Amino acid sequence: METIERESPRVRFADSAIEMAHGAGGKASRRLVEGLFVPLLANPILETLSDSAISNFNGSRIATTADAYVVKPLRFPGGSIGELAVNGTVNDLAVSGARPIGLMAAFILEAGLSGEALRAEVEAMAHAAKRAGVPVMGGDTKVVEHGLADGMYVATFGFGAVDPRAKLGPEFIREGDRVLLSGPIGDHGITILLARGELDLEADLASDTRSVAPFADALLATAGESLHWMRDPTRGGVATALNELIHGTELGITLFEEAVPLRDEVRGACEILGLDPLHIANEGQLLAVVAPGASDMALAAMRGVPGGERAVCIGEVRSKPARAVLAVTSYGGSRIIDMLVGDPLPRIC
Amino acid sequence: METIERESPRVRFADSAIEMAHGAGGKASRRLVEGLFVPLLANPILETLSDSAISNFNGSRIATTADAYVVKPLRFPGGSIGELAVNGTVNDLAVSGARPIGLMAAFILEAGLSGEALRAEVEAMAHAAKRAGVPVMGGDTKVVEHGLADGMYVATFGFGAVDPRAKLGPEFIREGDRVLLSGPIGDHGITILLARGELDLEADLASDTRSVAPFADALLATAGESLHWMRDPTRGGVATALNELIHGTELGITLFEEAVPLRDEVRGACEILGLDPLHIANEGQLLAVVAPGASDMALAAMRGVPGGERAVCIGEVRSKPARAVLAVTSYGGSRIIDMLVGDPLPRIC
Repeated sequence: METIERESPRVRFADSAIEMAHGAGGKASRRLVEGLFVPLLANPILETLSDSAISNFNGSRIATTADAYVVKPLRFPGGSIGELAVNGTVNDLAVSGARPIGLMAAFILEAGLSGEALRAEVEAMAHAAKRAGVPVMGGDTKVVEHGLADGMYVATFGFGAVDPRAKLGPEFIREGDRVLLSGPIGDHGITILLARGELDLEADLASDTRSVAPFADALLATAGESLHWMRDPTRGGVATALNELIHGTELGITLFEEAVPLRDEVRGACEILGLDPLHIANEGQLLAVVAPGASDMALAAMRGVPGGERAVCIGEVRSKPARAVLAVTSYGGSRIIDMLVGDPLPRIC
Repeated sequence: METIERESPRVRFADSAIEMAHGAGGKASRRLVEGLFVPLLANPILETLSDSAISNFNGSRIATTADAYVVKPLRFPGGSIGELAVNGTVNDLAVSGARPIGLMAAFILEAGLSGEALRAEVEAMAHAAKRAGVPVMGGDTKVVEHGLADGMYVATFGFGAVDPRAKLGPEFIREGDRVLLSGPIGDHGITILLARGELDLEADLASDTRSVAPFADALLATAGESLHWMRDPTRGGVATALNELIHGTELGITLFEEAVPLRDEVRGACEILGLDPLHIANEGQLLAVVAPGASDMALAAMRGVPGGERAVCIGEVRSKPARAVLAVTSYGGSRIIDMLVGDPLPRIC
């Protein structure tokens, strides 16, 4: 789901036409959301929300989230659109501290899509939902004429009960807090790019699509209220997620760039293509900010989750430079890491 | 949302390719849902659900619903895709006896869509949401390359609290119950068909898109537990909705065909095009089944709602013929009314 923040200055959306970048999760997406959706649909929850919208119901908090999936190709090493559609929605709930109650799925199918291709995706959704322990409770199907979709698009909706221990949001982060990451970045985005076969590049890579709920559960159980923020860094990558975190605060983040885990294949592809791995999408990693006193235990808890062995502290919340993500190296180098601008990797999720 | 029933025999989905009819809401849609989605995603709620899925949460019932909208053209007399996307989802909650708490929207935009066209639809959503008294709490936006969508598609998700008085479902209908309808049928489907300009036909018609929640509220307040079932007869029309109602029961419905309100323009277009108005989609009408003793008061309550002046009793639940909708005329004629077969009107919602 889009990230929408409260304290940003009002932006006016005056772009004459929609471009791919408006869907890439970076600056153009932000302009669209802040300049068009938020002012027109104005309400207090929309203006404050992050990965999920939180509503109060009978004294409990309910988190709801909605995402559209248009990935190309539909199937790729490590996953497919159906698996992504379940995991992505489960993850938006997880990083909001919510335990999923149910999912719903709306399909837009292109006439001519093979019945077997559809069956494969429904099976992928079923397996992912079973792994995440959440039922797909219903949905809708529409069909458009051949040529008016790319096989299939899926929109998924999820709702869940927010853990009473969860006190998460940019307003809770403090100077000195640690930034933790569950594992290597960039696998998903680079895998999709290579799976299109448009580049003369090959690599032994697979999407990291998975539920991050086990990480979120472990962090909540270990750190409790010392856990201040979580996010799955999808479109726009770690760089965009961290910039969005600090955007409405007076704080900055110092990123220990060498600590960020990265597979050689992703590093190599990024070097050849001129991409920054910090801008590449992930579909199974969790970023968390925790108070310094809880950091070691939280990191140990993440490492104890299968698939979290490479979890690591990648940075700290600092007061300076304010509202910036500053990457530093052990050699004394530093650079400001901005949000994603433009759209180097369209249709990745 | 798709209607999924519990007691139907297991169908296997073996169609080699998706066709427009799979999205039309009739028999092919049903085969897709019963033969593919239900067996693969099997869970108790999916197997029993109707317009919404009902979950228990903290001792209350929460209704959730998901719908995709792919209407062509995006704007038409009486409404547009944005208004439809809000009203349709509000209506799925309303006919489940739920008061909406929040909506979420996922947009799939075609690169090249004008910024003004998008703004117009977000404004339409905002107005419809305001009229329905429900906030749009969040969403997501994806962009696909030019040519891979038809301007824009929207998926809308809604959730709400089910009224404690609501005891609704096919299992509650009884012989002798009355079938009530809020007003004239077919306006939406015929309006969309004419708005495409592909036929050499004109008519002074507008879509009936609106929230049916005021009708549902009035019926619940008046009839309480004597209200047995509600539905907004969208794709597949009144005929499909009534066939689905009785499908899992041992009952039938006798439809007083002459009582069904119909504008002359709809009647005329249907005659020329060879369509049955009972199969044409509506986006602002409510079908209800109430116990005979509550029928007069319920009808008076519907007529008291602005826009419900032509509400009428159009039929009765009878034991024979079982599992069939039988239309009768005052001249003694009768015919079995089946579900929609095929897809006479693609992309109407």
